Amino acid sequence: MSISPDQHHHSKDSQKINVGIVGGTGYTGVELVRLLVRHPAVHIAALTSRTEAGTRVDAMFPSLRGLTDLKFTNNDANELANCQVVFFATPHGVAMKQARELVENGTKVIDLAADFRLQDTAEFEKWYGMPHSCPDLLAESVYGLPEINRAKIQAARIIGNPGCYPTTVQLGLLPLLEQQAPLIDPASLIIDAKSGVSGAGRKAEVSLLFSEASDSFKAYAVKGHRHHPEIAQGLKAMQSDTTHHQVFDKLTFVPHLVPMIRGMFSTIYVRLTEAGLATDLQSLFEKRYADEPFVDVMPAGSLPDTRSVRGSNHLRIALHRPNNGDLLVILVVQDNLVKGAAGQAVQNMNLMFGLPETLGLDVVPLMP
Amino acid sequence: MSISPDQHHHSKDSQKINVGIVGGTGYTGVELVRLLVRHPAVHIAALTSRTEAGTRVDAMFPSLRGLTDLKFTNNDANELANCQVVFFATPHGVAMKQARELVENGTKVIDLAADFRLQDTAEFEKWYGMPHSCPDLLAESVYGLPEINRAKIQAARIIGNPGCYPTTVQLGLLPLLEQQAPLIDPASLIIDAKSGVSGAGRKAEVSLLFSEASDSFKAYAVKGHRHHPEIAQGLKAMQSDTTHHQVFDKLTFVPHLVPMIRGMFSTIYVRLTEAGLATDLQSLFEKRYADEPFVDVMPAGSLPDTRSVRGSNHLRIALHRPNNGDLLVILVVQDNLVKGAAGQAVQNMNLMFGLPETLGLDVVPLMP
Amino acid sequence: MSISPDQHHHSKDSQKINVGIVGGTGYTGVELVRLLVRHPAVHIAALTSRTEAGTRVDAMFPSLRGLTDLKFTNNDANELANCQVVFFATPHGVAMKQARELVENGTKVIDLAADFRLQDTAEFEKWYGMPHSCPDLLAESVYGLPEINRAKIQAARIIGNPGCYPTTVQLGLLPLLEQQAPLIDPASLIIDAKSGVSGAGRKAEVSLLFSEASDSFKAYAVKGHRHHPEIAQGLKAMQSDTTHHQVFDKLTFVPHLVPMIRGMFSTIYVRLTEAGLATDLQSLFEKRYADEPFVDVMPAGSLPDTRSVRGSNHLRIALHRPNNGDLLVILVVQDNLVKGAAGQAVQNMNLMFGLPETLGLDVVPLMP
Amino acid sequence: MSISPDQHHHSKDSQKINVGIVGGTGYTGVELVRLLVRHPAVHIAALTSRTEAGTRVDAMFPSLRGLTDLKFTNNDANELANCQVVFFATPHGVAMKQARELVENGTKVIDLAADFRLQDTAEFEKWYGMPHSCPDLLAESVYGLPEINRAKIQAARIIGNPGCYPTTVQLGLLPLLEQQAPLIDPASLIIDAKSGVSGAGRKAEVSLLFSEASDSFKAYAVKGHRHHPEIAQGLKAMQSDTTHHQVFDKLTFVPHLVPMIRGMFSTIYVRLTEAGLATDLQSLFEKRYADEPFVDVMPAGSLPDTRSVRGSNHLRIALHRPNNGDLLVILVVQDNLVKGAAGQAVQNMNLMFGLPETLGLDVVPLMP
Repeated sequence: MSISPDQHHHSKDSQKINVGIVGGTGYTGVELVRLLVRHPAVHIAALTSRTEAGTRVDAMFPSLRGLTDLKFTNNDANELANCQVVFFATPHGVAMKQARELVENGTKVIDLAADFRLQDTAEFEKWYGMPHSCPDLLAESVYGLPEINRAKIQAARIIGNPGCYPTTVQLGLLPLLEQQAPLIDPASLIIDAKSGVSGAGRKAEVSLLFSEASDSFKAYAVKGHRHHPEIAQGLKAMQSDTTHHQVFDKLTFVPHLVPMIRGMFSTIYVRLTEAGLATDLQSLFEKRYADEPFVDVMPAGSLPDTRSVRGSNHLRIALHRPNNGDLLVILVVQDNLVKGAAGQAVQNMNLMFGLPETLGLDVVPLMP
Repeated sequence: MSISPDQHHHSKDSQKINVGIVGGTGYTGVELVRLLVRHPAVHIAALTSRTEAGTRVDAMFPSLRGLTDLKFTNNDANELANCQVVFFATPHGVAMKQARELVENGTKVIDLAADFRLQDTAEFEKWYGMPHSCPDLLAESVYGLPEINRAKIQAARIIGNPGCYPTTVQLGLLPLLEQQAPLIDPASLIIDAKSGVSGAGRKAEVSLLFSEASDSFKAYAVKGHRHHPEIAQGLKAMQSDTTHHQVFDKLTFVPHLVPMIRGMFSTIYVRLTEAGLATDLQSLFEKRYADEPFVDVMPAGSLPDTRSVRGSNHLRIALHRPNNGDLLVILVVQDNLVKGAAGQAVQNMNLMFGLPETLGLDVVPLMP
Repeated sequence: MSISPDQHHHSKDSQKINVGIVGGTGYTGVELVRLLVRHPAVHIAALTSRTEAGTRVDAMFPSLRGLTDLKFTNNDANELANCQVVFFATPHGVAMKQARELVENGTKVIDLAADFRLQDTAEFEKWYGMPHSCPDLLAESVYGLPEINRAKIQAARIIGNPGCYPTTVQLGLLPLLEQQAPLIDPASLIIDAKSGVSGAGRKAEVSLLFSEASDSFKAYAVKGHRHHPEIAQGLKAMQSDTTHHQVFDKLTFVPHLVPMIRGMFSTIYVRLTEAGLATDLQSLFEKRYADEPFVDVMPAGSLPDTRSVRGSNHLRIALHRPNNGDLLVILVVQDNLVKGAAGQAVQNMNLMFGLPETLGLDVVPLMP
Repeated sequence: MSISPDQHHHSKDSQKINVGIVGGTGYTGVELVRLLVRHPAVHIAALTSRTEAGTRVDAMFPSLRGLTDLKFTNNDANELANCQVVFFATPHGVAMKQARELVENGTKVIDLAADFRLQDTAEFEKWYGMPHSCPDLLAESVYGLPEINRAKIQAARIIGNPGCYPTTVQLGLLPLLEQQAPLIDPASLIIDAKSGVSGAGRKAEVSLLFSEASDSFKAYAVKGHRHHPEIAQGLKAMQSDTTHHQVFDKLTFVPHLVPMIRGMFSTIYVRLTEAGLATDLQSLFEKRYADEPFVDVMPAGSLPDTRSVRGSNHLRIALHRPNNGDLLVILVVQDNLVKGAAGQAVQNMNLMFGLPETLGLDVVPLMP
C-alpha cells in the first residue's frame, strides 16, 4: 500500500501548525489522531505514551496504517517544546502539571480532561480527589464550548475542553437560558442521559467487557457524577437572569450505559414558565443556532438517533412538548468522542489559530 | 438426539391442563412455548398460526428441537375447544373476537395483547383504532398484575395481561400509592423508559433491522404511546387517596429503544411530598414485596442491570434519592418478554388454576 | 445549523462531474451519497427512488442533514440524461434495462448489482433467475476491480462493480495466481467468509431483524451463493498458467453472518505447491501491492480485524502458514459497503474520468 | 422477594450431593452456579474465591438474588473436605495442585481447566508453560466427553472436562472416525472455528472490552491454540483404524472472535475418501447420536445458528456436501459456557454419581 498522496501531514510543511498529543493510546487520543491526520493545516509533531514509547502508532491502531508513520514517545518537555499547541488526552491531573511550562514557552494547551473545567477549585478537589496545582492558570483558562465562548476561545492560551454529557446539556438548554425572561423552572430540571461504552475510556475493567456490557442496560453513578457540577456551572454562567443562578444545584442527572460503542443521548425534562409557554421555542432554537456549523436543530417532532452523528462533530437537538403540556422534552444526540471530546477540541484549536472553524471536521456520519 | 425423559408434556397426562396458544410465531408466542414446554402441569394442546399451519414448531424455532413435536395449526374453534385455557399472543383485536365463544364453552382466556387492558372503551378505540367488540366481557375481565389483583385473577375467566412498560411502572410505584397519605406529587411523574428491540415484536420492518437498530440509541413515540393510558389507569386504581386520581393524566412517559434483544429499564422520577420525605421508603418497599415471589427490592443504592433478569420472571427495583433531595428515582428492570409478557401470563394461569404461583417459572437468569 | 462552506456540491460548478444514483435508499446507495457528497470533483445531480420520490434525502437519512438538499426523484430518463455517469445501486436486473440508452447518450454506467459481473450469460441466468437483456453490452463491459483491470476501467463505458466477497477473495489470491509457476493447488481452495449484516441490504426481512441476528452466528447459502461463479470467473482470469483454469470450479465457498453492521472477513485456505513453498510469499504480496493505494499487506503474522477498515476503502491482507506447513491461510478484511461496494465504485469512477484514484476516498477508518 | 419454594438447595438435604466450586467468580464458575442452584440432587456446599471471600455471591451476581444465600469463601481444604465432588473453574494449574488431597479423601474432582485434558505431559508443559505436578493422577483421570467415555466417566475419580472448541470438533467428527474403513482424509482437516467473547473468560483485558470487540470480527491464535493438541489427541483416540493415527498432527485450526456473548460455531472441512463418498453420512450421524440426549443431528441441509442453543447443554450438527463433491462441511454449534464447559461438567457429575444424565440440564434455549 502506498501512502495516499493527500496525507499532507507527512511533509513537515513550515506553514503547518505543529501539534502534540499527550496520551495517545486512549480513545480520545486516537480520535484526535483520526481527525488531525487529515487536517490540512496541521502536522502531528508528537504523540506521547508512557507505556508505548517507541511503538508505531499504526502498529497499535492498524486503522491508521498508510496514514502516518508516527511513533509514540515519552511525555517529556523536549518532545512538546516545538509544538504550537498540545492536546492532553490524559487522566485528570496531568495537564495542570505541565501547562505552565508549555504556555510560558508559547505553546497553547487544550485539556480534554477535567483540570480546566471547574472554576471552583474546591469543587474540583471534591469531585476529582486532588488539589488543583495551578489556580492562576485555571482562572485564566477558557471553557471550550465554542457556541458560548467563541471569542474567548480565540484569545485563549488554555482551554478546558468540556465533558461529553455537559456538552449535550448546555447546548440543549442554551437558547432557553440566554433569554431575559425566565422560560424554564430550573428546579424542575431532570437529565436522563445515556452513553455508549467508549465514554468510559479504554480501560481494562471487568464492567466494561463485551460479555458484561453487551445486551444489557443499566444506570450508573446515580449518587453523583463528576459532570454534575460542570453542568451546573455551565448553566449558571449562561443565564442572563442572575436571580435564578443558585437553583441549578438542584438539577437531577442520571447517566446510563448503552450497549453501543459511540453515541450519547440526553433526554432533558424541564418545566416551562408562563413566559416559556408563550414562546415559540422551535423558532428560538433555530434562530440561536442558525449560524452554528455543528449544532443542528431538527424539525419539530423529530426523533434523532445517535447513529446520525456517528463519527462526526455534529450535535442534533429536537424539541417535544407532550400533550402540549408545560413539560419540555429536549432530545440531544452527539458522538461522545467527537463533539463530546476530540472533535470539539479540534474546533477549539481552529478558533485559537484563526483557521476556519470547520477545517478538518468535514466527516460525514457513518450510517449504517 | 433422544427426547429428554423429563419432557412431561409429551404424555397426554389426563391430569394436565390443556393449553392453547393463538399466534405462536411472534416473540411472545414462542416465549410462551419456551416456558410451557417445561411446565410440569401443562400440556400444549394447540399452537396456531395462519401463515405456518402444518409446519413443525421446531422447524421454525430450532431452539425447541427435542422438546416438542407440535405443529402449528390454523386458528379455528375445533383446535381450541378442548383447551382449558387459551393464550392470545396475537395482534390487538384478535382476542376480543374469539373470547366469547371460548369462555362460554368453559375455556379461560389470557390475552397478551391490549384487548382487555383498558376498561374505558373510548380510550381503547382512541389508541388502538378499532371499536371494542365485547364491552361486557371487558367489564368482566381482570387486569393480570398478580401483585395487585391476585384474588381477582384466581376467579377470572378473562385476563388482560399487562403491557411491558406498565408492569415496570406500576410495580415501581405501587407501595407509594397504596398509602393513605399521599407520598408523591403525581403531577411531577416522569417515566424515562428503555426497551430492548424484541419489545417491538417479530415484524419485518426496516427500523428493526440489525443494521438500523444496532450500535445506536433513540427515543420513539414521544408524542404518545399506547401504554400511556394503561399506566395512568393502573396508577389511579391503586391509589387509596381518591382525591389525587385525575392527576396521573399529566404523567410524562418517554420510551427509548436500546440495542439489546431483551430487557426493559424504567427510570422513574417523582417528587416526594412532606409525608413521603418522612417515610422510610426502602423499608416500605421491602415490606410490601416481602412475600412476592417475583418482585425483588434491591438494597438501597443498588444499580440493577437488565441482564440480571434475562430470561426470568423477576422484576428488580432499586430506590435512589440523589443528594437526599425531594426527588425519588426508582430504577426498575425486567425481561420484557417474561415478566413483561409471557412469564406474567403463565403466572396468571397458575393463579387461575390453583397451581403454585411459581410453577414452571423457576428459570435462572442467563448471565453473562 | 449553517451549511458547511466546504460542501462544494451545492454550487453547480460547471467543472464538476454530474453523477446520478439510481436506487438511493439502499445501503449501497446511501453509502455512495456519503462518499460523493464530499467528493471535490462531483456534483450529485440525481438520486432516484421509486418509493421515496419527492422526499428529501436528509429526511430519510438524518446523517446527511446539513450536507445536501437533494430530493429523491423517480428513475426516469430525463433525470439521468444530463449525468456524465450513473451508478446503479439497485436490485439485479435494473441496470441492464437502462444501460443502453444511457451509454448511447454518452453517459457512463457503473452497476453495483450483478448485471455486468458474469460474462457467461448462462451462468448469469442460472444464478439470478432472469435472462440477460443486453449480451453485447455485457461483452463490452469491464469488471471493475482496479487492481486487475485499471487500464480497461479507464477506457470503459460500463463497469460491473465486483461483489463484496469476490473482492476479498480475488485480491487475497491475485499475487499467487499471476505467477508463471503454479504456486497453489486450485482444487484445495476453501473460502470461509464472514460478513456483517449490512451485506444483506436494507430489506425488511425477519431473518435480518436485530432480535434475530444479534448475539448469534450462523452460516448461510452453503448449497451455493451467487458470488461463487463470480469468484471462479475472476480467479480463472487472473491466472497466467492457463492449464489450471478449470479447476477453480471445485473451490469451496461458505459464507457466514456476523452480528456486526459493517465488515467482511475472508479466511482463505489453500495448499501450496512445491513452487509455492519455495517462494517468499510475504515479499511477493508486498511487491505486488506496493503501489496500490487501497490494498494493505500487513506484516507477516498480523491479525487484522474488520474495524480497522470501518468506513474506509482499504482492504487489508495478512498471510499465515501454521506450523510452516503446506497450507497457506490468507486473512482479508474490508468494509463490505466501501471497498466491497460504494467505495470501489467511486474508485472506478475516478479512473474513468481521469481523476486521482483516491479522490474523495480519504476517509480514515472509524475506530473504535 | 421471598425465596422461591422450589430452591431445594436451601435445605441441607442429607440425601443431596454436596458440591464445591473452586473459582466461582469467572464465567464457568458462575455458570456452574446457575445450573447447580436448580439441580434437584445437589447442594452447593462451598464456593471459593480468593479475592471475594466473604462476599455474598448474589451481591456480585444479582442474577442469583433469591436463589442462594451462599458466600464466597477462601479456597482451603476445610471448606472442600465435606464435598463429594469439587469443580475447578480456575486458571490452569490450580486443580492439579489440590486434586490429590481431595481424591485421597474420597472427593471426586472435575476440572474445567486443562490440567487433566492432555495425557502427554510434555505437550501439557509446552502449551501451558508449567510442569505437570501429578502425572499419576493425570494417567488415572478420564477425559470427560460423555458421548465417547460414558462408562469410564461413571467410574472416574478425576475428570478432565473438555475444552470448548475440542467438544465441537470431536462430536462433529466422531461418527466418521469410529468406522472401520477410513471415511475421511485426516490430512485435509481444516477447522474454522468462531467463538463468542465469553470464551475468553471474565478477564480485565483491553482486547475484550465492549468498545474493542463489538461490531468487529477477527481471527486470533492462528499460530497455535492450546486446543489444537487436545483436538488432535481426541481425534486419534476415537479412530478405530489405527494406521491413520499420526496424521491429525497436520490438522489446521483457526479460531475467530465473534461479537456475541455466548455461542460457538465450528465449520469443519474434510475430504471424503471413496468409502466416505459411498456412505450415507446423514444416516450414520443420526444413528450414532440417536440415544444421546444432548447431541442433535439436524436434517440434511440445515443451517444451525448459535442462538438455538443459547443457555442449553445441546450441541447441534448439520452436514453439507457442496455440489455433491468430495468435501464434507460439518457445521457444529454449542453454547461455549454450557456444553462447552459448565453444562458438560454437570453432565459428567450426573454420570459419576449414577444420576439421570440430564438431571438439572433441562434448560430450554433462550430465543430470541
